Parts: sequence; structure tokens; C-alpha cells
Amino acid sequence: MPNPLFGRDVVSIRDFTRSDLETLFNTATKISNMPSRERRRLADGRLLGLIFYEPSSRTKLSFESAMYSIGGGSIGITDPSTSSIEKGENFTDTVIVVSGYVDVLAIRHPREGAARYAASISEKPVINAGSGAEEHPTQAMLDLYTIYREKGRIDGLTVGIMGDLRYSRTIYSLLYALSKYDTKIRLISPPELRLRSDALIDIHKSSWIQHISISEVISELDVLYVTRIQKERFPDPTEYQKVKGSYYVDASILEQGKSDLIVLHPLPRVDEIRPEVDRLPQAKYFLQAKLGRDLRAALLALILNPEL
Amino acid sequence: MPNPLFGRDVVSIRDFTRSDLETLFNTATKISNMPSRERRRLADGRLLGLIFYEPSSRTKLSFESAMYSIGGGSIGITDPSTSSIEKGENFTDTVIVVSGYVDVLAIRHPREGAARYAASISEKPVINAGSGAEEHPTQAMLDLYTIYREKGRIDGLTVGIMGDLRYSRTIYSLLYALSKYDTKIRLISPPELRLRSDALIDIHKSSWIQHISISEVISELDVLYVTRIQKERFPDPTEYQKVKGSYYVDASILEQGKSDLIVLHPLPRVDEIRPEVDRLPQAKYFLQAKLGRDLRAALLALILNPEL
Amino acid sequence: MPNPLFGRDVVSIRDFTRSDLETLFNTATKISNMPSRERRRLADGRLLGLIFYEPSSRTKLSFESAMYSIGGGSIGITDPSTSSIEKGENFTDTVIVVSGYVDVLAIRHPREGAARYAASISEKPVINAGSGAEEHPTQAMLDLYTIYREKGRIDGLTVGIMGDLRYSRTIYSLLYALSKYDTKIRLISPPELRLRSDALIDIHKSSWIQHISISEVISELDVLYVTRIQKERFPDPTEYQKVKGSYYVDASILEQGKSDLIVLHPLPRVDEIRPEVDRLPQAKYFLQAKLGRDLRAALLALILNPEL
Repeated sequence: MPNPLFGRDVVSIRDFTRSDLETLFNTATKISNMPSRERRRLADGRLLGLIFYEPSSRTKLSFESAMYSIGGGSIGITDPSTSSIEKGENFTDTVIVVSGYVDVLAIRHPREGAARYAASISEKPVINAGSGAEEHPTQAMLDLYTIYREKGRIDGLTVGIMGDLRYSRTIYSLLYALSKYDTKIRLISPPELRLRSDALIDIHKSSWIQHISISEVISELDVLYVTRIQKERFPDPTEYQKVKGSYYVDASILEQGKSDLIVLHPLPRVDEIRPEVDRLPQAKYFLQAKLGRDLRAALLALILNPEL
Repeated sequence: MPNPLFGRDVVSIRDFTRSDLETLFNTATKISNMPSRERRRLADGRLLGLIFYEPSSRTKLSFESAMYSIGGGSIGITDPSTSSIEKGENFTDTVIVVSGYVDVLAIRHPREGAARYAASISEKPVINAGSGAEEHPTQAMLDLYTIYREKGRIDGLTVGIMGDLRYSRTIYSLLYALSKYDTKIRLISPPELRLRSDALIDIHKSSWIQHISISEVISELDVLYVTRIQKERFPDPTEYQKVKGSYYVDASILEQGKSDLIVLHPLPRVDEIRPEVDRLPQAKYFLQAKLGRDLRAALLALILNPEL
Repeated sequence: MPNPLFGRDVVSIRDFTRSDLETLFNTATKISNMPSRERRRLADGRLLGLIFYEPSSRTKLSFESAMYSIGGGSIGITDPSTSSIEKGENFTDTVIVVSGYVDVLAIRHPREGAARYAASISEKPVINAGSGAEEHPTQAMLDLYTIYREKGRIDGLTVGIMGDLRYSRTIYSLLYALSKYDTKIRLISPPELRLRSDALIDIHKSSWIQHISISEVISELDVLYVTRIQKERFPDPTEYQKVKGSYYVDASILEQGKSDLIVLHPLPRVDEIRPEVDRLPQAKYFLQAKLGRDLRAALLALILNPEL
């Protein structure tokens, strides 16, 4: 029987069971301990196609280094302005044509549902590398994997999520992912950037609590997940200035938390995590970014190899 | 004796005999059936340099995936705005410098004759990936290869070519390519976009007929080759609107054609082929794009390997 | 004992001894004579990360082809406008994240000291591929290597350096490099673009002489190093026009020089070396560019392999 991710599209984290995620996490750990020669056989001669209609250096490099680390290559359209997009080529044609050249596709697109649509027309498996405001499944997989590696479990944890909960696509995917586990969720944001919780369907939210301030809740948390607050989300710039100064993490806030609290962030950050935190043991966001390579390598390897 | 394409520049389709093209087509078919391991030995450790002064995602990805599929790598300048072009580096210096780094070059340039000039100064073979308005030889090779694969022959066919015949560089190369075979040509375009037939020299045009409407000629055709009509070619936008609506392919037009008619398009398309056609058996433009990888892989392999 | 460059950062040419440079030059020559199969084992499965905050096709392609030629791969952020830089990601985070994905980094940045700072925070060795106005160490290594290959020595030579000595970052690195050897330096520039010699510290400048005109000094030179004069350096455009016409190399100037004089240039050039010179035996700037691949391949191989 092939592995449960073989040939699968990765459109939404909702499509993956706990058992799927366990397979993925175990493979990521297995791969990270593999000798390079063996590891580089997993995608030898295989090609990843990147179709990025939105800029993202980090996600792009993470996928490229992941594919390279298992012996494969990458090609892609990563700057819409130099591509046929300028000539009015439609998304459908681009996906079909590129899927004819490669073994697996990673797609990033500003439009909601673009990745699901691409998966429906592509000859090859499609990985959603971020589409619209709501889905970024490989980021959520990575977030969970980092928690799992650091805490040894996900069930039973209390997870605080702070910042822009309304417009950050990583948050929606993360909440769907966490909902597969028995976790307590603490949402910390200004009222303007509160979660559109009606957007999250089929989830038990009974253990979720909304907070205005991090200090109310810091002492309970096992995990603190921080996201950027973007100026452009506020109609009134003075509102932004007010809010901006209240949603950040520094050393003195962390002193009020558990000693084994871990701080995560999808990066890039601006100043919502102060540089002083980088040196503290709670800071796990750089580790998180680094694990992205092995997590995505595991995902690609599972998609490409029936037996793994 | 080395194969007839070994070390050759590919500047114009006119430089290639029927016998050269047969070698190329047979190699493309041979390569497409090769086990990956064997195939990836054909350019192992070799490097393709892409110098693209015009945007083109499809042609670029086609070359990159072709080179990768035979075991080689690609590097390139594909966004003029990030390159030394900004510093006023001249084309000559760029070609000489990059040809010192790679084994073969693919060049795309808006200026007529740029590829021919590059070939004259480069240390390494140069492939014209589109220059000026008149030449795109690998596209023409691919067009012919697709016809050959689908029809089993080229001699004896009636080929309709519809759309912008005046400014489309693929058309000029295609007509030169077809002129090597015994074909009947039907040209279908608005008067404003009629072929500059004085631009095509040394070709017998006795079997060519000009048409204004596709319906006049559809029943005769074995192959219908469609190109985009670009708005910017018309001095008067109302003229464009008038013309635009008349030169497209849909299911009902195809019903008037032979049952084994095939429809080709160099892509990207806008709406000159209606989406409904994609599902019909006549639609071969996605296959055509896909064959581009193996055709270009064969071309690169022949240029790089004396015995193949 | 590992080779003296193993795991080293390459921030400034000043950090390298004559003995380090000899190791580098000998390795470059050794590598250029290696069979491809052996050579491609030197970085097999290793990844170079390019973080280029300034456009540079030549330096980028030189690094990519160098890495490829020893069996490794490259990924990178080479167009700041498509990267997270737009989202305000700070340089620190970018360097830490990318250094987690790759084995060695090459960084190009407009700010003085950026490469030194990156080296201090990166997990992996950092190569300065040009930072601020003052340092471009791999270019200086290449300049010296070209002289060494062509002349068989560096000690005892008289080297003329002409053009913009004030703002060209290659010049500062070159002068530091030459100062490790027993050379005579002749500086040829308009007064406005004279060397800021106070910027060069810890160097004996007793054998340096300043000139206004190339004809005063051409007959003494063993090496003539030319750089571009950039219009944007002049507050007054009429000053530029005046100066521009006086600092160039053509065939008739070279006739006044030694018969074995060699002419170097970091490229890109505009018109400070006339095209007629390209065909003369003195012209070594294309060879210089070409040697860049093997020199950088040697540098990468030494950094990545303890025993080489």
C-alpha cells in the first residue's frame, strides 16, 4: 500500500488527518537524520515547478532548498512581471503547461481558491504555497511540527495566538490544524483584527478565549504564536499607531510566562518580536524557519514516492 | 562522424535541412522513451545559459525543464531590470562573458538579428529563443514535431494559419519550416494583419491561398494553427474590437472541419481559442507545449553530444 | 590540518594572507584541470545561497556557474522587489533564515559593513559579493589571479589603475590585495575621482604615484586596470562630458605601452575600452571574467572541504 500522501494535492490543511500529519512529521524527522547520499535519492531527477503570483522569498527558498536536499530541482515563474502573465495568459493555461514540464507544482496566488482550482486541472500534484487570505497549509504543518518537536506532543497544550488574526492567512490554517488536537486556544488581538470566526467552519471553538492584552494570558501559555500587524489593514493610520505599540513580545513579557514557553512566528517580522528576544531560550522562530526545509522535503518526498 | 547538429548554432529554421529535422524528431521521440537514468546522462554536468531580454515564462521554463531532464543545469539573466543591462553593459560583452561560464546559450532579444550576431561572437553554440519579429526556430521545430507525431507525416497536409500573421514571429519561422515540405498553406487573417510575404524569401508560395474568414476554408484543413491578435498592433482600437471577434475557434467551427483536424497554438492564448475547445479531441496545443520539453531536450542533447 | 580557507568567511581581502591567496590560486588552477566527474564531487549536494540586494548579473552568474561546476546548486533572492524585503523583513532575519537552508552564503548589499555583519550572525560561512563602496574581495582575488596566471608573478610589477578611483569598490579591494605584494602603483584619474587614500589604512603608499593622464605613464606599465566612470558621480554633467572623453583605452594608446602589457577591467564596461582593443593581445578582461568561474569555484571548494 502506498504511503497516505503519495500523489496527493496539498490544498488545505483540513484535508489531512492526524494520522496523515503523523506520517509527515515522522518522515521529516527521519529525513533530517538521513545521510545526504541516501536523502538525495528521494527526488533524484524530479522537478518542482514554482508558480508564484505573489512575492515570497522565504517560502520560495524553503521549497527550493527542500527539493534540492532530496536530490531534485526547481524551476519557476516567481516574478509575475517577467512572465507571460503580462501577455494576459490565463492561469488555467499556465498551470496546464507548467504541469507538463514538472513532477509536482507549488502555487502561490492572491486569489481565494486558486490552489484548489489549479489542483483540479493539473496533471501533477499541486501544493498550495499560500492562496488568498485563508490557506497556507505547509506553514500550518510546519507550525505543528515545530511544536511537536519542541514539546513532544500537541494534545493538552495551551496555545496563544497574537497579532493580526483577521487577515493573516497562516492563522486560519494554523487554527484548522490545531483543531485536530485537544488544545486550548487563546486569541490575542485588537478588536479591529479579531478573527472572522464565522470563516472557520466545522470546528469546536468551545475552548477558545478572546483577549485584548497579552499580559492577561501569558502565564497560561505553552506556545505563543505571533504574527505581524500590517499598517495597510487599518483605514485610519492613527488607529494603527495606537495598536501597533501594544502587540509585541519583549523580554519582560516573557518573564511573566512559563519557563518552557516557546515563541513562534511565521516570519518575516517587523518589530512585533523585539530583537532582545532572539537570544532567549523561548525564541523558536528561527528554528521553525529552519525546520521548514525538512518538513517540506518530507512532504515532497511522500508525494513523489509511493513507498517511504 | 558526429551527428549533424553537434556544436551547431540554431539561429534560423532556414539553416536546417529536412534531414536535420528528421534527426531532431527521431531523437526527441527516442529521448521521450528513455529511462530517466540514461536520459540524465546526456547533459550531465553541462550548463545552459539563458539570456532573456524579453519576458517569456513558457519558453524559459521549457528550456530549463528540457536541460534538467537530460541531467544538466541552467543559469541566466531573465529579468533585464536586475542585470547589468541597467549599468549600460553592452550585449556583446554579456554574450562573451556568459558564454565563458556555460556550455550552450539560449538568447531571446527584441532586436532583429540579435541571435545571429550573438552566435558570431559566442565561444559556445547559441540557440535563438526568439529574436525580433521574425525568428523563433525552436518553436517552429516544435510545431512541426507536433504535426509529425500526430499525423505521422508532414508532406501532403493542408495547414491553415489564422490570426496575426504580420507581427507574430512564430509564423515566419513556421512558414519557413513548412516550406521544406510539400504542404498546402491557407492564410486566414484580417487585411491589416496579412503576412508581409515579401519578408519570406526563397520560398515557393504557389500553393498558398489568402482567406478572410475561417469558415471559407475550415473543411479543407488537416491542421489549424492559431495565434493571438494583439491589441497594441492596431492604431485604432475600434478596428481591433471589430477584428478580434472574428478570428477565434470554437466548437461549432470545428464541427465544420475534418474529424481528424488538429488545432495548434504557440500559447499564451487570450480568447482566440474558446475554453470549450480544450476538451475536444482536436485540441493539441497543450500536448504541443508539453512536447516542447522533449523537443528542446533533443536539440540540446544533439548540440552537446557528437554521438547520439 | 584543514586547508586554511575551510569554513572561513570572505568579508575583506585584508583578512587573507599571501599564503591564503597562494592556496586559492593553486586550487583554482588545479580545479580548472580536473576531469569534470572529479570536480563535480567537490560540492556534491551542497547549496549556495545568494542574497543580492543590488543587481549584478555578472557576479551572480559567476557564482552560480562556479557552484554548479563543482557539483553544487544555488538558490537565492536576487531581485529585492519580489522578496520579503518589500514586507519590511529585516536583513538580520533574512540572513539567519537563509543560512538555515544552505551551506554557504554570498551577499551583495549597498550598505558598508553589511557583509561583515551578516558573517557575524550567519550559521554558515559568508562570502562578500560586494558591499557598500569599499569591498569586493572575490573580484580582487580574481584580479590578482588573472595577473598571476598571465605574468607568472605579482611581485615586481608596475600596475596602472585608471578611471573612477573614488567610488569603485573593486579598486579599494584591489589596492589592498596588491599591497600584499611588492608592486608599484600608478593611479590615473581626474581630480574629482581621485582615490580617497585616507580610506585605505595600514598600507605603505610610498611607491604610489598619482597621474592625470594615461599617456604620462603608459610606457612603464605591466598591467593596466580600467574602470568605468559613472555619470551619476558628477554633480555637474558638463564636467562628466569633459572627463569622460579623456579616460579610455584604444589601440593607439596601447602602441605606446610595453608589448606584454595586459589590460584588465572588472566589467561591465561602457566605452572606456574601445571595441577595437578586444582583438588585441593585450585584452585580458574577457579571460579575467572567464577565470572568475574557476577562482570562485576554488574558493567555494576550499570553504566547504577541509581537505583539498
